[in-house]
Amino acid sequence: MNHTWHQHLIRVLYQDTDQMAVAHHGNYVGWFEVGRTEMMRDVGIAYKRMESLGLLLPVVDMNIHYHRPARYDECLAIYTRIITYSAVRLEFAYEVRRIDDVPSAWDHSRERQFATPVGKLLASGSTLHMWLNTKWKPARIDKAAPDVFELLNQTMNNKE
Amino acid sequence: MNHTWHQHLIRVLYQDTDQMAVAHHGNYVGWFEVGRTEMMRDVGIAYKRMESLGLLLPVVDMNIHYHRPARYDECLAIYTRIITYSAVRLEFAYEVRRIDDVPSAWDHSRERQFATPVGKLLASGSTLHMWLNTKWKPARIDKAAPDVFELLNQTMNNKE
Amino acid sequence: MNHTWHQHLIRVLYQDTDQMAVAHHGNYVGWFEVGRTEMMRDVGIAYKRMESLGLLLPVVDMNIHYHRPARYDECLAIYTRIITYSAVRLEFAYEVRRIDDVPSAWDHSRERQFATPVGKLLASGSTLHMWLNTKWKPARIDKAAPDVFELLNQTMNNKE
Amino acid sequence: MNHTWHQHLIRVLYQDTDQMAVAHHGNYVGWFEVGRTEMMRDVGIAYKRMESLGLLLPVVDMNIHYHRPARYDECLAIYTRIITYSAVRLEFAYEVRRIDDVPSAWDHSRERQFATPVGKLLASGSTLHMWLNTKWKPARIDKAAPDVFELLNQTMNNKE
Repeated sequence: MNHTWHQHLIRVLYQDTDQMAVAHHGNYVGWFEVGRTEMMRDVGIAYKRMESLGLLLPVVDMNIHYHRPARYDECLAIYTRIITYSAVRLEFAYEVRRIDDVPSAWDHSRERQFATPVGKLLASGSTLHMWLNTKWKPARIDKAAPDVFELLNQTMNNKE
Repeated sequence: MNHTWHQHLIRVLYQDTDQMAVAHHGNYVGWFEVGRTEMMRDVGIAYKRMESLGLLLPVVDMNIHYHRPARYDECLAIYTRIITYSAVRLEFAYEVRRIDDVPSAWDHSRERQFATPVGKLLASGSTLHMWLNTKWKPARIDKAAPDVFELLNQTMNNKE
Repeated sequence: MNHTWHQHLIRVLYQDTDQMAVAHHGNYVGWFEVGRTEMMRDVGIAYKRMESLGLLLPVVDMNIHYHRPARYDECLAIYTRIITYSAVRLEFAYEVRRIDDVPSAWDHSRERQFATPVGKLLASGSTLHMWLNTKWKPARIDKAAPDVFELLNQTMNNKE
Repeated sequence: MNHTWHQHLIRVLYQDTDQMAVAHHGNYVGWFEVGRTEMMRDVGIAYKRMESLGLLLPVVDMNIHYHRPARYDECLAIYTRIITYSAVRLEFAYEVRRIDDVPSAWDHSRERQFATPVGKLLASGSTLHMWLNTKWKPARIDKAAPDVFELLNQTMNNKE
C-alpha cells in the first residue's frame, strides 16, 4: 500500500472565519476537495478529464474529526492519500495541519510527496467515492477508463 | 412602472458570520439571488422552468451598497423588484432590511407584495442580467418564451 | 430517550448546485447546522443566548452518508434530533429528505415535531459537539447554565 | 498615482461551479478579497495585524462587471490595485483574468507586480472600504496607525 501523503498548501481566508474567530467547520469539506483534486492531478488523473470521459466521482460517505481550530491567515497543509480503491470505488484519507511554525514546509513547497505529515494536527477525516456515469449509475473504471485504473494501480503499488 | 416590492424572509446563519461578528459581505450576493428567485416564482416565472426551456439568465453587472452590518440570528427581509426589462435583459433592485424590531413583518409573512419596505436598511443594490441560450449566446425572450415575456409585461404594467 | 424529529424546510438554491447539476456535498454541513439551530430554538435553547453566556458548542466530529443527490429548487426537509447528551457533550442525528412529492409535509409546515420523517431519504449523518468556554476550554453545562441543562433533560425524557 | 497591479494566482474549484457549468458569480467576491489581502500583505500591511490594532476595514460599496464565465479547473489571475485612498477610506480595483493560455504567467508566478495584466478578461470591479474601530465607528488611519498610512503613501507615490 502507498503510505505517501500529498501536500497542498493553503491560507485561511477572512471569509472562512465565523464569529468564534475560527475557520467554520464547513470549510474543511472544501479543503479536503482541494487536497483530493491536487493529489489526483499529481498522479496524472485530472478530474476535469474524468468528466470529459463521462465519469463522475461523487462523495458517498464523509467523516471529519476536529482536533484544534484553524484561525484567520494561518498557513495550512492539506495532506491527502488514497487508502482503498477498486474498479468501482475510491477512498481518501486527509489531515489538515497548521505549518506556520514549520517554515521548512514552505521552503519545500515545490515538493509534494511526504512520508510523514508535518505541523500541528487540526483535523483528520476520510471520504468514500463511487465512480458513476453521467446517468448517475455505477461505472467500472477498469472498463470505462483502463489507463486511469492502471495509474491507480501504479500509485498504490509502486511506492511501498 | 411597477413599484411593488416582493418580500422574502430569512435568518442570518452562523456560517454567514465572520470574525468581525457580522454577516460576511459576500452573503448578500446569495440573498439577492434568493430574493430574485422567489420574486420570479411569485410572478409565475420559475427559474427552473426557464432552464428547461434552454434559457439562462446570468448576472452581467452587480453593485451592492452596505449601510449597516447584519448579525447572527437576526431576521432579515429581502425586498426585490424589477426596475428595467426588455426582450434581452432584466434588471433587479434589492433592499435587505432587519425586521427583528418590526414584529408585524413576520405576522404578515404570508403576504409577499409591499408598496413600502419596512425595517432598518442594511444594504441595497442591483443586478443586471441577460437572457442567453445554452450555447451562452444572447437570446430574445419574446421569441424564445413569449408567455414569459407576457408575464413580465403584465408584472411591470399592471400595478402602476 | 426522545425519538421525536424536528422538521425544518428549505429549498435548494442555485448557488448550492455544482456542475454535476446536483447540490454540492458541502451544503449538507450548513443544512445540518440550520436544522440543529432551529431544533434547539424550538426546545428553548437559542444558540445566540448560549454565546451571550460565554458558551460555545463547536463540532468535534461529523459524518455524512449521501444516499441520493438533491437538485435545484427541490424542497427538502431537514430532520434533527438529539441522540446523546451529558454535561459536557451533545450529539445530533440528521436526515435530509426530499418532500416535493409529499405535499402534506408543506401543509403541516407549522408543525415541527414528527415521530417518523417523511419524504425520500437523500442524506443522513450526525455531529458531536462539546461545550467550551470563550477560552476554548471544556465547560460543564450543568454548572455554567443549569436551566439549559434542565431543558435538555426535559427534552430527552419527556416524550418517550 | 500607482498604476502597478498585484497578481495572485488561483484555480477554479469544483465547489465554485454551478449547474450552468461556470463559476457562480458569487465567487468573485471571495476572489477580490484574496487579491486584496495578498496585495496588502505584499505592501507590508497584513490585515491580521490591522485587526490586532483594533482596526477593521469593511466593504461599504462593491461593484462587479462580468465579461466572460470562468470554468472548472481554469487558472485565474486576480489583479488588484489601490485606486484612491485617504485617512478614512481605501478603494481597490480588480481584474480577474484567465491565464491558461498564458503559460509565462505561471513561469513568473514568483513576481507579483505587473504594469499590464495578462490573460483573457473575465470580470472587473471595485470595492470601497472605510477604516472603523472595534465599536464600528469611523477611524483615522493616520492617527490610529501612522506607519500603515505612511506605507500607503509610499505605495501610491513611489512607482509612478
